[in-house]
Amino acid sequence: MSGTLYGLGVGPGDPGLLTLKAHAILRAVPVIAYIRAKRKTGEGESLARAIAAPHLPGGQVEIPFDIPMSSDPRVGQAVFDERMPRVAAHLEAGRDVAVLCEGDPLFHGSFISFMDRLSGDFPVTVVAGISSINAAAARVGLALATRNQAFGAIPATLDESRLESLLAGGDGAAIIKLGRHLAKVRAVIDRLGLTARAFYVERVTQEGEVGRALGDLAADFAAPYFSMILIAPETPDAGRRYE
Amino acid sequence: MSGTLYGLGVGPGDPGLLTLKAHAILRAVPVIAYIRAKRKTGEGESLARAIAAPHLPGGQVEIPFDIPMSSDPRVGQAVFDERMPRVAAHLEAGRDVAVLCEGDPLFHGSFISFMDRLSGDFPVTVVAGISSINAAAARVGLALATRNQAFGAIPATLDESRLESLLAGGDGAAIIKLGRHLAKVRAVIDRLGLTARAFYVERVTQEGEVGRALGDLAADFAAPYFSMILIAPETPDAGRRYE
Repeated sequence: MSGTLYGLGVGPGDPGLLTLKAHAILRAVPVIAYIRAKRKTGEGESLARAIAAPHLPGGQVEIPFDIPMSSDPRVGQAVFDERMPRVAAHLEAGRDVAVLCEGDPLFHGSFISFMDRLSGDFPVTVVAGISSINAAAARVGLALATRNQAFGAIPATLDESRLESLLAGGDGAAIIKLGRHLAKVRAVIDRLGLTARAFYVERVTQEGEVGRALGDLAADFAAPYFSMILIAPETPDAGRRYE
Repeated sequence: MSGTLYGLGVGPGDPGLLTLKAHAILRAVPVIAYIRAKRKTGEGESLARAIAAPHLPGGQVEIPFDIPMSSDPRVGQAVFDERMPRVAAHLEAGRDVAVLCEGDPLFHGSFISFMDRLSGDFPVTVVAGISSINAAAARVGLALATRNQAFGAIPATLDESRLESLLAGGDGAAIIKLGRHLAKVRAVIDRLGLTARAFYVERVTQEGEVGRALGDLAADFAAPYFSMILIAPETPDAGRRYE
């Protein structure tokens, strides 16, 4: 009988934001796999493994996927091609393998690549994780949406006109993966008159977390990849109802 | 010293989807509060309390907010006006109060009403919860978004033209709170040619969970309030990259 491939959401950074279910699976699986951002020098780091670290029982087999940061899709594909057979071999031998995923496995998560390649041959179970967006809202104390409000999660990598139409059409929003796109995103937010409702959050629940009003950031502020801007929806009518 | 008001996300239904952090707070607080849907006869039910029940240590004070289902906002307001002083009194006396919230406290959650009324006077800590959307994606095995894809969470209560423009503008989507709006939503999805990418999920991770392709539902299918339609984004290019 083959093992199960688990996609385990480990949340945005705080190890306390793992679910009880993910925690139990993490304690029990003999094999874990995770993406590790390969650096030019040294071994690189895996945020997902760092989040899970306090909960690891020890003794498990580890399969890191060392993927260099690159805009060329073929670079990552080559690593997946090389490493995936190791994952498959454990599953074939009846051993469960848990892929550790920052945030939620199926929302901008690398687990999608594992699922696409292995779900035809092995049983797959996904355990949802706390997304960085929900964690950021909790830290800032900002309601993402209520009543009849629409909410959008929008990558900062989109071009200005697409960003503008997505932001103009919705109510609350999170603009994720800011990095070098911050200046472009700020220009769109300013143009739409949304700056007063915009909050910047960096490395939520991780070491070095930053949270502040977007208007308070210097014009040349440098945002890392793990950062976002939350746009609060307009305050709903005074008379809220239970929905 | 006053107590802390906690907004505790307890997830969509499965008690295993509580976070370790929410679990620890739940075990420690002397007072819990929760919304209970008031019925015409009998006591009504609280989904949030039912999710938390296996983890409750016993002996805590409970403050149910019995709110009749009504489209009139004043009905719920009256209950909040009457009950909130009990919550405030515990906080004033230095006792922590945890408000149990289905899914995530700040995403279409009634915790927003607690926060608005009490955050001026007492410290508030929000613990993010697994949203039903992430849980539904996990159950269906559907990627919500990846790479440059935008994702929208859209209430089914919006009118047809707004639904259509929000769905046409994004990539992946979840249309939530279907209830009596299902037929309207299906018409929009059909018109946009999205039916083949649409999955219906009802009571995710709860007793009586249903998940199936939207096209397989009978034309007169009756959806409850706790149901949604996930729209899968178009399959991204074959060459995915790690982001």
